[in-house]
This record gives sequence, C-alpha cells and structure tokens, in this order.
Amino acid sequence: MLKLGIIGYGGIAAYHYKNLKKYKRLKVKGIYDLNPLRLEVGKKDGLITYASKEALLADPEIDIVLVATTNEVHKELSIEAMAAGKHVICEKPVTMSSKELEAVMEAAKKYNKVFTINQNRRTNKDFVLMKRSVEAGLLGDVYVIESRVEGSRGMPKGWRTIKALGGGMMFDWGVHLIDQLMYMMDEPVVNVFCKMYNIEYPEVDDNFRLTMTFESGLTAQVEVSTNNYITHPRWYVLGTHGTLRIEDWDCDGKIVRCLDKESVWEDEIVYTKAGPTKTMAPRRPETIETIILSEPMDVEDSITKVYDNLIDAIEGIKPLTITAEQAMRVMRVMEAAFESVEKQQAIQVKI
Amino acid sequence: MLKLGIIGYGGIAAYHYKNLKKYKRLKVKGIYDLNPLRLEVGKKDGLITYASKEALLADPEIDIVLVATTNEVHKELSIEAMAAGKHVICEKPVTMSSKELEAVMEAAKKYNKVFTINQNRRTNKDFVLMKRSVEAGLLGDVYVIESRVEGSRGMPKGWRTIKALGGGMMFDWGVHLIDQLMYMMDEPVVNVFCKMYNIEYPEVDDNFRLTMTFESGLTAQVEVSTNNYITHPRWYVLGTHGTLRIEDWDCDGKIVRCLDKESVWEDEIVYTKAGPTKTMAPRRPETIETIILSEPMDVEDSITKVYDNLIDAIEGIKPLTITAEQAMRVMRVMEAAFESVEKQQAIQVKI
Repeated sequence: MLKLGIIGYGGIAAYHYKNLKKYKRLKVKGIYDLNPLRLEVGKKDGLITYASKEALLADPEIDIVLVATTNEVHKELSIEAMAAGKHVICEKPVTMSSKELEAVMEAAKKYNKVFTINQNRRTNKDFVLMKRSVEAGLLGDVYVIESRVEGSRGMPKGWRTIKALGGGMMFDWGVHLIDQLMYMMDEPVVNVFCKMYNIEYPEVDDNFRLTMTFESGLTAQVEVSTNNYITHPRWYVLGTHGTLRIEDWDCDGKIVRCLDKESVWEDEIVYTKAGPTKTMAPRRPETIETIILSEPMDVEDSITKVYDNLIDAIEGIKPLTITAEQAMRVMRVMEAAFESVEKQQAIQVKI
Repeated sequence: MLKLGIIGYGGIAAYHYKNLKKYKRLKVKGIYDLNPLRLEVGKKDGLITYASKEALLADPEIDIVLVATTNEVHKELSIEAMAAGKHVICEKPVTMSSKELEAVMEAAKKYNKVFTINQNRRTNKDFVLMKRSVEAGLLGDVYVIESRVEGSRGMPKGWRTIKALGGGMMFDWGVHLIDQLMYMMDEPVVNVFCKMYNIEYPEVDDNFRLTMTFESGLTAQVEVSTNNYITHPRWYVLGTHGTLRIEDWDCDGKIVRCLDKESVWEDEIVYTKAGPTKTMAPRRPETIETIILSEPMDVEDSITKVYDNLIDAIEGIKPLTITAEQAMRVMRVMEAAFESVEKQQAIQVKI
C-alpha cells in the first residue's frame, strides 16, 4: 500500500488523516510540523513524527507527501518533496503566485512526479446540484451565476490574518469558489473586477466581491465574507427561462421556470406600497412552475476522491483530474482580482 | 390655485392626475398627447384636451407643465415650456444625457423658472426604513449597500424597448435607485462598473448590475432585472456590526447585530455537508440580537410631496429639494455605467 507523509499537521491535515484512516489505497505513515504541540497531536493520533522535514523526505517508504503548511512555503516544500522522489498533494491555494506555481510545474516535469492540489470542493453536493441543473438546461441560457460563502465571526485569528503567510479570504475560500466555476465552465475568463474589504484586519481581505466575466458574456459573481449576520443563498443562478436558488450546503433550494415566455404583455400597472409599476408587475402563477431541489444522494463528497484520482494517476490508471494547469488558471484569476483592487480597474484577461 | 398642463398623457401622467384630484394646491387643467387615443382618455378623465402642445403652452392659465412623454423629447419640451413662461416638472429620466440636461439648466436660468424632476422614490417607505436604520448607526460603519428591483415578465413592450426613445432598465429604474443612494450618501461617487444584459431586446438593457464606489470605499450594488423568477431582497446592507435585509416594498425585514465583536475566536471547526470549515462556523446565538423591521407608518409616500416642494419653491417658501444639479449627478453615473459596459472597464469618476 502507498504511504503518505504529511508536512504541516494543522487542522486541515488532521482532517485528511481522519478521512484516510479507513482508506484502502494509502496509509498515513508520519508527519512533520514546526510546532511541537502539533507533533504531540500527531503522536496521539498514532503517527510517526519525524525530527525534520528532511528526515520525512528521506524516508524511502514515503511515496506521497501532503503539503499542508501555511501557504508561503507550499512552493519550496512541493519542489523539495518532488526532488526527493515523492509525488505531492498540496493544500490550496497551491502557491502564493503564478510565478511560484510555474516553478512547481517545472519541478514536476523535471522529476517526473504527479502533483495535485486538494481542490476537493468540486464534489460538494451544493455545487454538483447547481451544475447539474444548469447543464440539464432547466434554466435556459444561463447569464449570471452567484456563488457566496458568508460567515459572521470574522476571520480566524492566526496566520489567515497575515499577508506574508497567504492569509485572506481570496486565498482561503476564493480559490475554491473560482475553481468550481472554472471547472464547470468550458470557456475562458475575459474580465475580472474585484472589491476587497478590510473590516477587522488591515493586511488581508476579510471580505471580497469578485465579478468574473466569461467569454460568452456569462457573469459569475463570487463573494466571500466573514462579517455577514444575514446570509445570502449559497447559489443564485439566472437563466433566460428560469432562476435557481440553493440556500446552503444542505442543498435546500428551488428552480422557478417560465412556462409561457412568449405570452403577450398585458398593459397593467400594479400599485405597490412604493407606487405604481408596470415592469415589476407579478406573473400569473399558471405561467411558472417550481421545481424543489434537495441533496443529490448519489454524489460522494469525500476527500478520498482526490486521493483516488491522485493514486490512479500515479498508477497510470487514469489521467489526473485536478491539475497544476487548472490551478494556474485559478491563480491567474486571483492575481487579476488583486490587480483590480490595486488599480480600481476591471482587468482584461484571457484565462 | 395654480394650474397644471400635461404633455404626454400615458400611464404615468394618468397616475399623476389621479393623485392630484384631491390636491389642494394645484389643479390639472388640460393635456396634450400625440396619440388621439390618449386624448380620449384625458377627455373621459374630465380634462381639457389641447389641439397641440403649442396651444397648451400658449394658455396663460397654465402655470406649470408636467413633461411626461417618452424620454427623447424631455429636453426640448422642458425648454419650450420654460420659454413659454411655465415652471416645469419633468418625468424621469430627466433627459437622455448630461449634455441635454445642461441645456435645460441653462433655460431654467435664462427664463428664471423652477425646474424639478419626479424623483418621487426618495419617500418610498422601504428606502426611508433602510436609510433611517443606517443613519441611526444600527449597523456600525456601513460598507456595502445592495439595492435591487426584480421582475419576471420581461420588459413591457413598446417604447421601453427602443434605445432612441430612452428605453432600457437603467433609464427606467436605475435612475430611481441611483438617485436614492446619491440622495442618501453625502460623498462623491469615485468608481463605476456596470454589466448590462440583453435577454429579450437587443437594443436596450433589460437587466443591469451596477457597482458604484463612493469616496469612503462604501460600495453600492444596484441591480435591476426583468427576468428573475426568484427575487433577492429589496435591500441588503452590510455594516461592521450588523446586517440589514428588507424583503420588499412592504418593508418586511430585519437587522441582525453583533453583541460581542471583541470576543475571542474559538478554535473550532464545523463539519458541514460540504466539508469542514473554521471560518464559516456559526455564531453562538447569545452573541447576536435581531431587530424586526416593518413599515414606517409615519412616512408619507405620495407624489404630492414632489408637487408640494415644487410649489413651495415657486412661491419662495422653501428651496427646491429635487434639483437639476442632483439629476445631473445621477445622469453622469448612468453615463459612466454605459461607458463601463462599452469599454468593459471600471470608470474612474468624481461625481
């Protein structure tokens, strides 16, 4: 059985370990962390703790290294691991910049190793439900996709608040939400406009609002915030013939579709509390239908899917599905977002 | 009593008339419309119908002219009316461009007439409720205001679908929503980014999404659409200490506020259907409070408020509150929005 070594044994690495305990294709052998307290946690979890990252990388039994440190050392650790003959799965964001990622990609080529990234949210049920609904044509031609993740507790203190360590919500959550959309859409992003906010921390974005325009004109609105006391829906999608809303990760939601797109407009005005309006008069109920959405029970959303694919690629069974090339596109969108904030401009791209 | 003549007797003019029937300070005397069918409607309403706009403007009894035609002739009719010695109330959008509005402003000065615009939505109850909540400091420092009006019936056919007549949702509803925000905010707009969509009509925006950034960094997101089968809330406002949501024109809504902004982050991870998250862990209920919002019963929202102010200004009682200068700012934001769409750029402004 393949053996995994983990560098950086924080919360997310412990989550990997927990999910890999019963996994048949790989065994977690040992860990290394700069923090002695985290090494203690690893010991309690029954794992070997190495004295240094070099010791871990020198262990010939280790086939794969999980890089789960703070973001600023993803690049060097990934390259060192591949140079030591290991395949690598790296936590997201893959690196701090596209330049760093290029170096990682060169190393993967040079040492002929498989390199993947834990962009595990492609199997999130809410995302799959939205994607399937759109692809089934239930909404007609889709022109807006809104994707939001909102918390109310501010950012966790610690490294996420420090720019040099790769903190901020764009790198933490943006990387997932952008990856989902670019994985779904089979066309380039041509325009990036972004607003970022520093509500509690001056260094990093604790909230952002990103507008990505795809080549066909479809607009994706991606928002992550840590200071929202009333949340928007997780997904909101506009198509020419219907609208989709999915409330949350539990997948409660609905689609409302139009049944008589061609009906003649009636010359009627409605009188609302805010005055008369013709444009915003409600539809007759018989001209729409509602489809109730719920959790897609056939979708398996587990981090082991990412490992399955990594091992398939190592063993030559299937090509890698989460690739550095894909991560590069996400990274370039994030870089365009930071550039947009700095210049207060929309950035024309072809990503 | 002052007497009003109406040029352009469509749906909105009939609405003015209906609201002015019992109004004490002004009497509607007569109308002119190019369309004989609308003249018939005016006759049935008991109004004098003039044979031409010149005849209406030549009537010495007419003190004020309401310009309620399609938008492309607002400028010339307003100027002609003032040249004929009439004060003018013009429907929104005031003109087709800032250049046209300049000409109107010059005419008002030259002929020394009062010119106002029916930006009546400043007294809409939902808007007043939002504005009061923000100004009372209930949300802390506000950094995002989202204002949306969404219909599902497409645009009304007719002139609203024709660019040359001033059609499209930016001119129809955008002008109101932008006016509300600029009336509320005591600072310039510095950045305008806009996306427009042509879902049913190729010529004009039947949907738009506008991001206005004010000098302090506050972002206003203004969206109007005619193809949304599931609506967003009418208002959604983010402050450092709370969030406001008002559902609709009936003013149902709430504020959720934070009571322990300074509490220490607990090192806990929640496991959602979509995996673990520390950042998006929910707050403990005792750290927030909810304030239920409802219709502010003391607010009088009537078109007669606009006439009150116009007549006060004519009679020298009070200065005009809906001025051409304000309409010019709104017009310049709308022009920046169109420029943004054309260039696919954010437009730096100081408006």
